[in-house]
Amino acid sequence: MNAAPNIAGIFPALTTPYHEDGSIAPEQFKANIARYNQTGLAGYVVLGSTGESVLLTAAEGEALLAAAKEAAAPEKLLIAGTGAESTAETIARTKKAAAAGFQVALVKTPYYYKPAYKAEAFIRHYRTVADASPIPVLLYSVPIFTGISLEADEIVTLSEHPNIVGIKDSSGVIQRVGEVTARAEKSFSVLTGGAGVVFPALAAGARGAILALASALPEKCVDLYEHWRNGRFAQAQELQQRLALASRTIVTEGGIAGLKYAMDTRGLSGGAPRLPLLPLAEARKRPIAEMVARLEPAAACA
Amino acid sequence: MNAAPNIAGIFPALTTPYHEDGSIAPEQFKANIARYNQTGLAGYVVLGSTGESVLLTAAEGEALLAAAKEAAAPEKLLIAGTGAESTAETIARTKKAAAAGFQVALVKTPYYYKPAYKAEAFIRHYRTVADASPIPVLLYSVPIFTGISLEADEIVTLSEHPNIVGIKDSSGVIQRVGEVTARAEKSFSVLTGGAGVVFPALAAGARGAILALASALPEKCVDLYEHWRNGRFAQAQELQQRLALASRTIVTEGGIAGLKYAMDTRGLSGGAPRLPLLPLAEARKRPIAEMVARLEPAAACA
Amino acid sequence: MNAAPNIAGIFPALTTPYHEDGSIAPEQFKANIARYNQTGLAGYVVLGSTGESVLLTAAEGEALLAAAKEAAAPEKLLIAGTGAESTAETIARTKKAAAAGFQVALVKTPYYYKPAYKAEAFIRHYRTVADASPIPVLLYSVPIFTGISLEADEIVTLSEHPNIVGIKDSSGVIQRVGEVTARAEKSFSVLTGGAGVVFPALAAGARGAILALASALPEKCVDLYEHWRNGRFAQAQELQQRLALASRTIVTEGGIAGLKYAMDTRGLSGGAPRLPLLPLAEARKRPIAEMVARLEPAAACA
Amino acid sequence: MNAAPNIAGIFPALTTPYHEDGSIAPEQFKANIARYNQTGLAGYVVLGSTGESVLLTAAEGEALLAAAKEAAAPEKLLIAGTGAESTAETIARTKKAAAAGFQVALVKTPYYYKPAYKAEAFIRHYRTVADASPIPVLLYSVPIFTGISLEADEIVTLSEHPNIVGIKDSSGVIQRVGEVTARAEKSFSVLTGGAGVVFPALAAGARGAILALASALPEKCVDLYEHWRNGRFAQAQELQQRLALASRTIVTEGGIAGLKYAMDTRGLSGGAPRLPLLPLAEARKRPIAEMVARLEPAAACA
Repeated sequence: MNAAPNIAGIFPALTTPYHEDGSIAPEQFKANIARYNQTGLAGYVVLGSTGESVLLTAAEGEALLAAAKEAAAPEKLLIAGTGAESTAETIARTKKAAAAGFQVALVKTPYYYKPAYKAEAFIRHYRTVADASPIPVLLYSVPIFTGISLEADEIVTLSEHPNIVGIKDSSGVIQRVGEVTARAEKSFSVLTGGAGVVFPALAAGARGAILALASALPEKCVDLYEHWRNGRFAQAQELQQRLALASRTIVTEGGIAGLKYAMDTRGLSGGAPRLPLLPLAEARKRPIAEMVARLEPAAACA
Repeated sequence: MNAAPNIAGIFPALTTPYHEDGSIAPEQFKANIARYNQTGLAGYVVLGSTGESVLLTAAEGEALLAAAKEAAAPEKLLIAGTGAESTAETIARTKKAAAAGFQVALVKTPYYYKPAYKAEAFIRHYRTVADASPIPVLLYSVPIFTGISLEADEIVTLSEHPNIVGIKDSSGVIQRVGEVTARAEKSFSVLTGGAGVVFPALAAGARGAILALASALPEKCVDLYEHWRNGRFAQAQELQQRLALASRTIVTEGGIAGLKYAMDTRGLSGGAPRLPLLPLAEARKRPIAEMVARLEPAAACA
Repeated sequence: MNAAPNIAGIFPALTTPYHEDGSIAPEQFKANIARYNQTGLAGYVVLGSTGESVLLTAAEGEALLAAAKEAAAPEKLLIAGTGAESTAETIARTKKAAAAGFQVALVKTPYYYKPAYKAEAFIRHYRTVADASPIPVLLYSVPIFTGISLEADEIVTLSEHPNIVGIKDSSGVIQRVGEVTARAEKSFSVLTGGAGVVFPALAAGARGAILALASALPEKCVDLYEHWRNGRFAQAQELQQRLALASRTIVTEGGIAGLKYAMDTRGLSGGAPRLPLLPLAEARKRPIAEMVARLEPAAACA
Repeated sequence: MNAAPNIAGIFPALTTPYHEDGSIAPEQFKANIARYNQTGLAGYVVLGSTGESVLLTAAEGEALLAAAKEAAAPEKLLIAGTGAESTAETIARTKKAAAAGFQVALVKTPYYYKPAYKAEAFIRHYRTVADASPIPVLLYSVPIFTGISLEADEIVTLSEHPNIVGIKDSSGVIQRVGEVTARAEKSFSVLTGGAGVVFPALAAGARGAILALASALPEKCVDLYEHWRNGRFAQAQELQQRLALASRTIVTEGGIAGLKYAMDTRGLSGGAPRLPLLPLAEARKRPIAEMVARLEPAAACA
């Protein structure tokens, strides 16, 4: 196992662009990353929920990992989403990500057999994955999609594993950030997944965030983090409130289609998502474009 | 498209047996089917939730379809679980199932991007699948696992598609059975997924059931259906109550591991499930064995 | 304690009519009961959820109990809703209902301090109430309003108390009807609260139903029960499906305001509910009126 | 209507002490307040959820309002819980609280008829109450008890009413704090109800907190607020994490019984709650006492 990387700062959950025929577009994906390389983003998350990973084939996922590795500036930390329903498949994907040059595996909870997935099952699953993984593991709790929330006791127990280095907690439950930070291993990183609560989560003890919104508005998300790091709390509060409104319009209401449209308005390659996700409804376009323009008046169509 | 088959009666959701090394055991799977061929089961569901389909590789799934086709008696209707998160992958799997000789595709709802999956997304998804499918499609709503429940309006709308022939509704919401039966196309079959509510569901208008419990107790499940069909309501009520208690102990509390253990006690090939599902806790074994023995006193270890 | 009454058949959950100035209208309430006395209803439930009991003062509640006692035909069983959040207040109300001549107390679960209300709290609450009550107690589980569902184990334990004689289970979970009937004391009556599942609940083992819909359509609800009792299952299924659709339009979508409007269309005293319940939206009136007319073509404005 | 008071800082949700015979103990209640008068608490909330208001009679509630008015130091803001299910009863209670000298009414959402309570019903309810109230109204959203969460759009709309001055939001959803602060009238105060998220909520834009935990640990809760106000963020984060753990052990796991026991260990009058709330289980006492001693080593039994 490698020495655990310092997982802190703002990471975008990268989207997946497609060609008109529906096939993935790695060259557009790389162009997006080239743009992001010029920002203060701490690294990239590939094959996360925002990347439509559950709608991709295995070959497509591997192609995107390779493309990200090629395009990413060397100082950017590379995090791959590798969680599958079965423990064995999760390990297989994690090994492939490591082989592709990724430094951290982001492993979402299994979530299909909910009534059977008690704490014991999650602990066994994550330990088995972490034992087998060549790279450090980040837990990933995203109840809005999975219906499963990792609880503080489970997270603290798993934090003791030397190859489990943190968690992306997208629940929005900020109390848990404080409880976990207070109880877990000191090196354990809590990252929030909610652009509407970055500053509160940092206040509670988080070290950073993995954000869908950072694919469209990376600079502003990084600004917020820097405000916090440099003790500019009034500015942090003010920017956070604006990002909370932006996140609601673009991500909560727009979904992946809305986020991709926000990217389009900024000259990044967004496009439509894959079925069964529907293209963005026309009526949602203007509010999203206006929200982006309000936050990035000069940067549109850069 | 073929003429729609008459989808009625009791179907077991087949389990997947594994070898000691964790690989699938198609020969045990076929031996189970050979036993089931001698009962009044109407057919078989392969690669359903109970079959751990979400824990299998694509190759394993195809091997099990081929094995079932080989082993099943010709009068048994063959239903394959083919639902994937993406519409395209669902179509691909459905075509493979048809090519393997399956007669019906059981398509569970997509369920990851819950906030984005409104009625419009489900209707588009199912219509796209049904348009492309060489075999009739059964909708599958299983909120206990997916967190998604198809509502009556959506089901009724989809019932108008000529290649959508019914639904397996595992919600336990019996009111919906009556509403859908009253409003949907006359040929549309509602099947319940709950062994504890077969008789109430039939009373409400269902035509049959797809049951995990029928993998362990096929004869009793068929008896219940026959009581209903022949107007023996007092016996139906009495047997239903016993099966409700059995289903709670074996399936609700035991999960797939409990169901497989119940099969083991009857000389069928059950075994342990795959990780992250845990093996059955020792303390659960005796109540399950006793429940089976109470329902099938003579049949144990047949 | 009295000998337990035979609690079976169809009971309407009576609505509360108001004068134009917002005060209760006991004389209209009695006129409704006079109409119901001519049907096959088994008795009346006063001060239930449908009666807006949580919106009435103590004095108003007592006035309605007195009015019902005066108006009800002697053979009709009188059931009073007496559940309050505190155990002591529940006992006080139950004693008043007994003193007013009511024969059974319908006691809904406490529901405010949800995280604290484990099985032990419910069992202690109900035993304390039943010990102190001069009349038999019916448990009442109505999760749609309370967020609390009594589970089978709790119900079965409570069924052993000599003064707890049954349950009104409005959860719609029909599996529980069978489990409870199979496990509880033989004299214990399960009543369903859902007009959409009366026949399935009877099939599962229920003895009757307490229905909001029976305040508007008492004859049809009684017909359904009689079909079941006399073995006319095809007719029961057909009528149940019609009542399921009626219940959705009138009660599920219309709420108490919709139910009261349905009563108005039949010449009963419905009227508007009390704030914060809003009057029925105009757009909902026609579908409700049509639904009533379809079920009771000749009886409108009787 | 009065000029809106400045609602900021830490308010304890006061508990209700009882005599051994179960009657309320206003003299103990006043003694608790006399202790609290010597702290930096901004005022007191009487008849909130923590005060077991739903378990008290009307006369008991009025006695506690009078006792609080007598005991409270003049600079402490007096807030009365006055929310009832019916709009009319809520107004009646609010007028009584104003007559008793209370300065603000804390009005929880109605919550029984959940399916009927859409945004329109909440807005009509709160406007009707605020129109009639002689004192300013604080909205109160407490989904853990009511199952109802006021959404940002509703809150923002209601913030425009001149007699609605803020909200106690106990949902723990910190994103909403930021959204509401950004969108509502500038004078509108958001207070959090969660001791585990005071600092994150303040970071998001809240002005204070109404806390059960502040009945047991008022000094520490005030310290946290003062750390924030004076820009001591590292200390705020550290103390917040300790209070998050304390809140979990004492309030989340212990409930009102646990909170009262924590008060007992500090020489305040706690005692047992009223049925159906059960007395604190013996096994929970030691962890609570230890948690208090860790936070207030010198202050125990003051």
